Amino acid sequence: MKEFTHLIDLDDFDLDFIERLITLGADIAVNTKRYSSACFGKVLATLFYEPSTRTQMSFQTAMLRLGGTLIGFDNPETSSVAKGENLKDTTKIVSSYADIMVMRNPVEGSAKAAAISSDCPIINAGDGGHLHPTQTLTDLLTIRMEKGHCDNLTIGICGDLKFGRTTHSLCKTLSKYKGNKFIFISAPELMMPDYIKDIIKANGGTYTEKYSLEEAVPELDMLYMTRIQRERFTDANQQLAANFNLTCDIMKLAKPDLIVMHPLPRVDEIELKVDDDPRAKYFIQAKYGVYVRMALILEVLKNDHPVKLLTKGFGSYDCTNPKCVTQREKYLPHSFHRKGDVLVCDFCEAVTLP
Amino acid sequence: MKEFTHLIDLDDFDLDFIERLITLGADIAVNTKRYSSACFGKVLATLFYEPSTRTQMSFQTAMLRLGGTLIGFDNPETSSVAKGENLKDTTKIVSSYADIMVMRNPVEGSAKAAAISSDCPIINAGDGGHLHPTQTLTDLLTIRMEKGHCDNLTIGICGDLKFGRTTHSLCKTLSKYKGNKFIFISAPELMMPDYIKDIIKANGGTYTEKYSLEEAVPELDMLYMTRIQRERFTDANQQLAANFNLTCDIMKLAKPDLIVMHPLPRVDEIELKVDDDPRAKYFIQAKYGVYVRMALILEVLKNDHPVKLLTKGFGSYDCTNPKCVTQREKYLPHSFHRKGDVLVCDFCEAVTLP
Amino acid sequence: MKEFTHLIDLDDFDLDFIERLITLGADIAVNTKRYSSACFGKVLATLFYEPSTRTQMSFQTAMLRLGGTLIGFDNPETSSVAKGENLKDTTKIVSSYADIMVMRNPVEGSAKAAAISSDCPIINAGDGGHLHPTQTLTDLLTIRMEKGHCDNLTIGICGDLKFGRTTHSLCKTLSKYKGNKFIFISAPELMMPDYIKDIIKANGGTYTEKYSLEEAVPELDMLYMTRIQRERFTDANQQLAANFNLTCDIMKLAKPDLIVMHPLPRVDEIELKVDDDPRAKYFIQAKYGVYVRMALILEVLKNDHPVKLLTKGFGSYDCTNPKCVTQREKYLPHSFHRKGDVLVCDFCEAVTLP
Repeated sequence: MKEFTHLIDLDDFDLDFIERLITLGADIAVNTKRYSSACFGKVLATLFYEPSTRTQMSFQTAMLRLGGTLIGFDNPETSSVAKGENLKDTTKIVSSYADIMVMRNPVEGSAKAAAISSDCPIINAGDGGHLHPTQTLTDLLTIRMEKGHCDNLTIGICGDLKFGRTTHSLCKTLSKYKGNKFIFISAPELMMPDYIKDIIKANGGTYTEKYSLEEAVPELDMLYMTRIQRERFTDANQQLAANFNLTCDIMKLAKPDLIVMHPLPRVDEIELKVDDDPRAKYFIQAKYGVYVRMALILEVLKNDHPVKLLTKGFGSYDCTNPKCVTQREKYLPHSFHRKGDVLVCDFCEAVTLP
Repeated sequence: MKEFTHLIDLDDFDLDFIERLITLGADIAVNTKRYSSACFGKVLATLFYEPSTRTQMSFQTAMLRLGGTLIGFDNPETSSVAKGENLKDTTKIVSSYADIMVMRNPVEGSAKAAAISSDCPIINAGDGGHLHPTQTLTDLLTIRMEKGHCDNLTIGICGDLKFGRTTHSLCKTLSKYKGNKFIFISAPELMMPDYIKDIIKANGGTYTEKYSLEEAVPELDMLYMTRIQRERFTDANQQLAANFNLTCDIMKLAKPDLIVMHPLPRVDEIELKVDDDPRAKYFIQAKYGVYVRMALILEVLKNDHPVKLLTKGFGSYDCTNPKCVTQREKYLPHSFHRKGDVLVCDFCEAVTLP
Repeated sequence: MKEFTHLIDLDDFDLDFIERLITLGADIAVNTKRYSSACFGKVLATLFYEPSTRTQMSFQTAMLRLGGTLIGFDNPETSSVAKGENLKDTTKIVSSYADIMVMRNPVEGSAKAAAISSDCPIINAGDGGHLHPTQTLTDLLTIRMEKGHCDNLTIGICGDLKFGRTTHSLCKTLSKYKGNKFIFISAPELMMPDYIKDIIKANGGTYTEKYSLEEAVPELDMLYMTRIQRERFTDANQQLAANFNLTCDIMKLAKPDLIVMHPLPRVDEIELKVDDDPRAKYFIQAKYGVYVRMALILEVLKNDHPVKLLTKGFGSYDCTNPKCVTQREKYLPHSFHRKGDVLVCDFCEAVTLP
């Protein structure tokens, strides 16, 4: 197992490293052309085991704007590599072709599984619902660029907070900055899970819960909207969904320097007319996603933050998560770390009782 | 709405601009290497909502030969962007990644709809049967290169002239040059529509109609062949279709300096043995398509011919064309211009009665 | 028909040319960066009529590491070019866009058929089960790099030797080097065909046959593993298949300087634990595949070894191989060469009785 600065999970890095990335991303946003040959001669492979056109294009644009080049696939149906062989063999080969690899894979823990046998650094572009760290980096650069800082903010997070993992990652990271107040805006059955609230409290932050945008919006510095899946609401609460649509009327209640963000694509949770409001930052947020990925590629290629992938503990246990990559790729070592009374799988982070 | 030199419809430009493009294309054809770094650092996005491999490769080759780079998609089935979101959001995001965008979309008026929200110039690579302006530019450069000029020619156009819109666009543009005579060669039920004939007459050109290639070929300077779809012939006229197959025997009747063109792909309207005749120019025509697209990319990036997209008139009417982009993308403004007694949709150019 | 250094079939070249390629490949492997601008301004088209992600990525990486650029398609389902038109028209057009073309096509003889009308050199990346010459070049460079030379070796070839054509090509080429001894390891019904044995004997080499890896491995300098398709074994011999799985136990019987190769992907014929044995060279073999393709692209673009494509003999006969490209592309000339009493199709190399 070779050591690289893989980006599998943002939790593998301290706030200093994340700040270094964001600061570099901010410089790239302003002086993009200065970086136009920084990756000359380098090849980025994008291995997308499920289509995600925008994420893939964002990485591709980032590499091209650094003067690098691209290989990869986007369609598992037509990719013999994606169909025909185990993740280890694909990773060994592609990492011998490329200098850096971006992987998206619906199987949880895939990026880490690939990193174990990779001969180049890997960036996780989403592994099932599990992790999607470059979305969080995109969000952080947007806040930095549009608010000037990531601390001392009143932050509204709206939508399906229970299942929407990008909001979990964002809250975990923002809670490391000082003085942030969180307002969670959702239906009771889709509220932020306790373990995120615990992290916020442990980091010295505060949070409240509200059941409508109207009520929450006036005090916000930043509003993070996400998709609502109506089918997840109980029948009794169907009418609640309408409370989480951002309209021009609601924008009238907000501060003049509010910023509105959304990871996109949206369904109908933001009225299209809001796009014309200068406080709507979700399109430029996509552009910042390119800059922060440029910064990430540069930092990862420096390779001065080697990541420890496995704790190598409790190898006789099996992960019980049916979506875990260890269920599919049978050659993988089993590896868990202890967390209180339970064992946590090093790949998918699911909890297994010892 | 930002202003760019979009190429949505050739009619948006005067003959001077078109001549500038063709002249630049002709220079590129001869001195290709001189342009090999002209787009260094630029990114072209090719968004193909329906596959058209050759058109896409032609644009890609053009950008690569200018030293630029590429992002995009070609398969709506595997593109989450193409499936999951409205044209506005996709356009906003991709145009924030790329410096120039090429779009092909089966929905009529899509290119203009995209241009409205784009943050970079857009080139229309076909929107349904509606417009395909870079094919016409390709045809013009071929005539310029192979005949030396685009005026004072006897031009035969053969095939399905009623539904084949590339022939309409070509005739409209060629009629702006002086002294061109048109001979339309087709079955009576597939003849050139009156509105094209009217434009030719208004521009001072002449036309005649013939029902067989044999009869028309001897006087031609240029013969433009297109696909015949046999199923469009009435039963009584089925045997006529054979009259529109170009064979070596018919080539014997033609002038020694005739040029034969075809937008390709062909089915069987040109016998394969004709390929060996030096008057067959349809393969080099494809190559000129790369050069003229190189010229187009350079001109569009100069951005000195801003295009007016909407007249903003008659916004209370609905376009009645079921294939119009306004039927799908409900947020689009309705916008018509008056033409005699009728209203014409600014997006799809279909006629609506006021 | 224009003359180019096409790579359709390794048999078109003498050992001197092959050695030149391997020697250049070896230099590129060591001094990769020196070649990073060797193809600046050149465009490689990869036309994959059947998906083969790894082969395509290998060529793409090769071209990118030479500073060139890429166009092409990988999915015949979404490629209008692959579906809608004859091979000649596609070849004419793409070869007018690109400087060099790589084609993979399930129809036997396709690469030669394309070469006939191409305006640029073509590299055959596999045409049905027929030929796959760049795999053999990859194998040769691996032997050169890992053993230092390709002669005086004891070479084991294991797997389905009857139908596995990459092993045929490898044996033919290795038999041109002096002093090589071949050991074929397979079940009786999947043994190396006589015509390969005849070539080895004619070139002064020797061979033996064995029915288990255990028995063969101790004397080998190189072991070439290939996929076994169990369904090809007779019922009586099903248990034999297990004899052709390479395990760590079998590796204990081998020389310390054995090298193990495999064209990949593997199924289960090599135990995954063997990967950790330093004698396992199949992953670095994939990497050498990039270097030898870089060498090939450079040599082909030099264009100093024009290849004779057709003998133009016996044009009145029809090839009887239903998979031959002449059955699909009806415009192709029929062309055979005599071999003893029979005629051999110049396209697919199938035998036809005169």
